[in-house]
Amino acid sequence: MGSKGSTLIVLNLKTYLEGTGEGAVTIAQACRDVAESAGVDIGVAPQLPDLYRVASKVDIPVFSQHLDGVGAGGFTGHAFAQSIKDAGAVGTLINHSERRLTLADIDASITAAKGVGLSTIVCTNNIATTAAAAALAPDYVAVEPPELIGSGIPVSQADPEVVTGSVDAVAKINSNVKVLCGAGISKGEDLKAALQLGSVGVLLASGIVKAKDPKAALEDLVSLI
Amino acid sequence: MGSKGSTLIVLNLKTYLEGTGEGAVTIAQACRDVAESAGVDIGVAPQLPDLYRVASKVDIPVFSQHLDGVGAGGFTGHAFAQSIKDAGAVGTLINHSERRLTLADIDASITAAKGVGLSTIVCTNNIATTAAAAALAPDYVAVEPPELIGSGIPVSQADPEVVTGSVDAVAKINSNVKVLCGAGISKGEDLKAALQLGSVGVLLASGIVKAKDPKAALEDLVSLI
Amino acid sequence: MGSKGSTLIVLNLKTYLEGTGEGAVTIAQACRDVAESAGVDIGVAPQLPDLYRVASKVDIPVFSQHLDGVGAGGFTGHAFAQSIKDAGAVGTLINHSERRLTLADIDASITAAKGVGLSTIVCTNNIATTAAAAALAPDYVAVEPPELIGSGIPVSQADPEVVTGSVDAVAKINSNVKVLCGAGISKGEDLKAALQLGSVGVLLASGIVKAKDPKAALEDLVSLI
Amino acid sequence: MGSKGSTLIVLNLKTYLEGTGEGAVTIAQACRDVAESAGVDIGVAPQLPDLYRVASKVDIPVFSQHLDGVGAGGFTGHAFAQSIKDAGAVGTLINHSERRLTLADIDASITAAKGVGLSTIVCTNNIATTAAAAALAPDYVAVEPPELIGSGIPVSQADPEVVTGSVDAVAKINSNVKVLCGAGISKGEDLKAALQLGSVGVLLASGIVKAKDPKAALEDLVSLI
Repeated sequence: MGSKGSTLIVLNLKTYLEGTGEGAVTIAQACRDVAESAGVDIGVAPQLPDLYRVASKVDIPVFSQHLDGVGAGGFTGHAFAQSIKDAGAVGTLINHSERRLTLADIDASITAAKGVGLSTIVCTNNIATTAAAAALAPDYVAVEPPELIGSGIPVSQADPEVVTGSVDAVAKINSNVKVLCGAGISKGEDLKAALQLGSVGVLLASGIVKAKDPKAALEDLVSLI
Repeated sequence: MGSKGSTLIVLNLKTYLEGTGEGAVTIAQACRDVAESAGVDIGVAPQLPDLYRVASKVDIPVFSQHLDGVGAGGFTGHAFAQSIKDAGAVGTLINHSERRLTLADIDASITAAKGVGLSTIVCTNNIATTAAAAALAPDYVAVEPPELIGSGIPVSQADPEVVTGSVDAVAKINSNVKVLCGAGISKGEDLKAALQLGSVGVLLASGIVKAKDPKAALEDLVSLI
Repeated sequence: MGSKGSTLIVLNLKTYLEGTGEGAVTIAQACRDVAESAGVDIGVAPQLPDLYRVASKVDIPVFSQHLDGVGAGGFTGHAFAQSIKDAGAVGTLINHSERRLTLADIDASITAAKGVGLSTIVCTNNIATTAAAAALAPDYVAVEPPELIGSGIPVSQADPEVVTGSVDAVAKINSNVKVLCGAGISKGEDLKAALQLGSVGVLLASGIVKAKDPKAALEDLVSLI
Repeated sequence: MGSKGSTLIVLNLKTYLEGTGEGAVTIAQACRDVAESAGVDIGVAPQLPDLYRVASKVDIPVFSQHLDGVGAGGFTGHAFAQSIKDAGAVGTLINHSERRLTLADIDASITAAKGVGLSTIVCTNNIATTAAAAALAPDYVAVEPPELIGSGIPVSQADPEVVTGSVDAVAKINSNVKVLCGAGISKGEDLKAALQLGSVGVLLASGIVKAKDPKAALEDLVSLI
């Protein structure tokens, strides 16, 4: 199990109404408060239009939900690394299961993010694609079996082998890459199990964002580490 | 030629570095100043991460460069209508040539935008697709021959028939839909010609954003109407 | 209700195992036999690798399931109009709900298909997109509410207004475009109802391909016209 | 340099008119004749509608240009592994630069191809993506810098490091995966250089298909091994 200092929790706000606009700010404040109390890192991934609002109002690591590997120029409607950086983000999700990219574009996104100093979390769906993503040298891979996303059934319980298998596969390919896991994570026992399986943290969403009391849900999440 | 009051100019900032972050704010201020002096409507379309920053700092119509026809929920990395609205935008481009959508998604985007009160500008590439887009009842269609985008050769000069043909085709299908034109537009004579061809305004980008003095370029743009 | 002579039935084999390889030939033979007995046109849409095999063995109108609007050249893995024509097809589906295209690409596909003499059936999902597709002047539009595809609930019963509304909308935009309907169609009464609602035929799939006896299912389909 | 027996040459016919329909058969016959004379393996990758025609007329390894990782069912217009197998193919290209796939879909395509006994060649664009592809355990990776495709400038000369770097990276990740290279290859010296750099063969296209005499061009290609 990792020390608290190296544990990373990233809360993906998706397009949940509860996490849109000022809602994103409110949830980010809850993340900050719980992170300070518990001594863990909790980042938040709001929608692109909410990056600046959240980052300028709350002192918390802000991640983009997506980043396109495009440069400056004629790329209307794309998520350009520099604008994400300027909005105050410190990193980005890449290739979330709800926003898949081609292999070439994942590589280009990582390169573009690194070029402006953003950390990178590449999402994957199984051990094979996790290994492949590790070969591209992002900071993190986050393995999430798509069938468990939003299911309420934690990956650490339903499919612990995908986590341990990912940790092993990544270690062989690039030991600098850290492994997160996700899908169905919301409770303290889920996070504890995820860390015991060798991941350094979790990516989570509905279990917190849609909770009646997101702050209480976050407090439960970090209660066992 | 339309009266000034009904003329619409929309400046697309794409992913130009000059129009990213604080640069977007600076260009928006120039748009506002020229719009006030000239008595015309000038809107600006910054990148998604810059919507809130621009809309909260400059009193000008702000358009998104893109909007996905998705609802609230599990749509990580998508451009959700409500978040665009909450960021302060009044409308959105849809289906720009650099961000094409399926026909079903254009329809869904228009519906989603209308649902939160955003005005819609659907971009098209020729007379046939302009007619098709008009059948979906957006507020505007903006016809832009892709080969002229960024060329510096104004569509009003290189291919006036695509503008007049679009105006005629749209009038037959839905007379509530207004026509903009774009591609290669940057000078006062280009805008004047565009209005004389029956469009109610223009969509433009590099000719202003990449100009040495964007404000002076905007002043030239509106000098003949 | 249209006369038999103008009625068109197109059986989409999708990627059903029963309609793959020699299975496609067997189903095409059943279509031919029933078409001859009943005096109606029944076409079949096999997968791309099966076009030549079916067209060279069975004298029946063969449609491609998809066609890309690309020309000759560097378009690896694309469905090129000339190769579809050379394989013996007489037409093609475009923009099926399982293979959506951008608006610009639908237009390019229609143009490419016409260029080699293939007839075109553009699939759509509601009245608005049907009207839009009609503006592109294909030979047919085929409206299919996605939620009814493969449901066994015929569109003619679940949502007759989408058929009559499509027929009306298309008539206003381009009276040369004929309307098919689809989704959940498999019985004689479904086809009869579809024709009574003003369509000239149907697009159907699982109800026939997955039937215990596809030929008997086809005989039932055409029994009431 | 590999022995002739393990060398693989794959000729991609793309959507070249010269390689469409009966043209595909004619080029495949030239490939077969030269392969027999020279004692090397030459495969051909025709368009999907030409797979059956070529495979049933010419005794040569036939590859699909593309394969979707979909199963049997509702996947209209997709390239289904079983139909490609039934058409007589022995393998498939996956993720060609002109037909990029998401990382998850590359993985699904490899799995689907293996499931029906098709060999797999995953195309990549640089050393990083080659390493990533190797982690998915295809039979071959084929590295092709996109900027050199169709350029007439052989990768073995313009960018030999991308070949040797790919060979090294793949060896570390999965030594069962063999490396091909491509882009700009057409001459005997290009193939010889490609083998000397550690690849086991080449993927090529326009240099042969668009040659005045494709058979003579193939004879030159294999003349130095």
